[in-house]
Amino acid sequence: MALTLYYSPGSAALAPHIALEEAGAVYDTVRVDFGSDEQRSPGYLAINPLGRVPALKTDDGFLAETPAILAFIAQSFPEAELAPLDDPYLFAKAQAFNAYLCSTVHVAHAHRARGNRWTDDPAALEALRRKAPETVTAAFRLIEDHYLAGPWVMGERYSICDPYLFAIAQWLETDGVDAANVLPRVADHRDRMRARPAVRRAMAMESG
Amino acid sequence: MALTLYYSPGSAALAPHIALEEAGAVYDTVRVDFGSDEQRSPGYLAINPLGRVPALKTDDGFLAETPAILAFIAQSFPEAELAPLDDPYLFAKAQAFNAYLCSTVHVAHAHRARGNRWTDDPAALEALRRKAPETVTAAFRLIEDHYLAGPWVMGERYSICDPYLFAIAQWLETDGVDAANVLPRVADHRDRMRARPAVRRAMAMESG
Repeated sequence: MALTLYYSPGSAALAPHIALEEAGAVYDTVRVDFGSDEQRSPGYLAINPLGRVPALKTDDGFLAETPAILAFIAQSFPEAELAPLDDPYLFAKAQAFNAYLCSTVHVAHAHRARGNRWTDDPAALEALRRKAPETVTAAFRLIEDHYLAGPWVMGERYSICDPYLFAIAQWLETDGVDAANVLPRVADHRDRMRARPAVRRAMAMESG
Repeated sequence: MALTLYYSPGSAALAPHIALEEAGAVYDTVRVDFGSDEQRSPGYLAINPLGRVPALKTDDGFLAETPAILAFIAQSFPEAELAPLDDPYLFAKAQAFNAYLCSTVHVAHAHRARGNRWTDDPAALEALRRKAPETVTAAFRLIEDHYLAGPWVMGERYSICDPYLFAIAQWLETDGVDAANVLPRVADHRDRMRARPAVRRAMAMESG
């Protein structure tokens, strides 16, 4: 299967990028230039009408939305054991975690720099920006206290939840959250992830 | 398997409620009283630390997050054919749609009445409320123009995407969107859903 990952450095696309590396997949990458707003160009909107990364080109067509792409990679490379595919309850637990990341954690983060998705009012944008550190901390608090079983999100078993958490946890300090002190278990998870060869390869490719 | 759905009328919990009916599942329901803020009570937070509905009690434990619960129902009742489980690409397409609903469409809606998730500033709350009809319309526009294949979301095959779209499309008029005129295909889908016996049963139970 020919796969092409559309990404931008520093985005959630790092999650499927890592998952592809963990799976030992052969794939191409295309860097979408956010500097020139390429994600809103007609060419890219034909790939993902929402104008976001990641997107994944497959033999059957394009996929968008990080949780869906991650589950697709897990299902397409079952030997990599990136998700508990044969246990509907555990698979749902993994999916619930990823749904929480996309609908609550990523959204809390987006209110710092992308508040114009929800308001054009300069004072309101500033109000959203001001509260973002608190909202992001609260969103990660549930992960710190409840969802991160340790050492990996699902416990002993590494899964598609881990690269997604890792990708989003990259933003903590920029969002004004002192992860090492406030979210020590999340910070430890981030360190654990950074030690994985697949993570190093994906990050090196994105910064290269 | 013993299943209990925790719901509140008028919430996204209508989606798994319909899916359970479509699957012919035997299940109990527990109404969570949003009027008394029961979703933030210690008892309910032990079920879902995020304090939201739906949640689903299973033999193995509790599940949260609508997309995950929907996929769990589809996998637990495969004979109901509520998702293309054996085709990773099509399954990912269904999941991508549901991820879009939870991370973009539901979030756009939440800025009308639940802006206090992201700001405490009264003027900012009012600014978020003011723009919500436009943001909700834009989020549904992609569904209208791209994602809703018709007659069902995935085309000829009814799936877990349909009850989720239906549940969220209940809120359009309250959000200030004249669905019949602005989003005719979404409005038609809503009418088509309302004609299904499973949808009628779930709605009657929630309003009873």
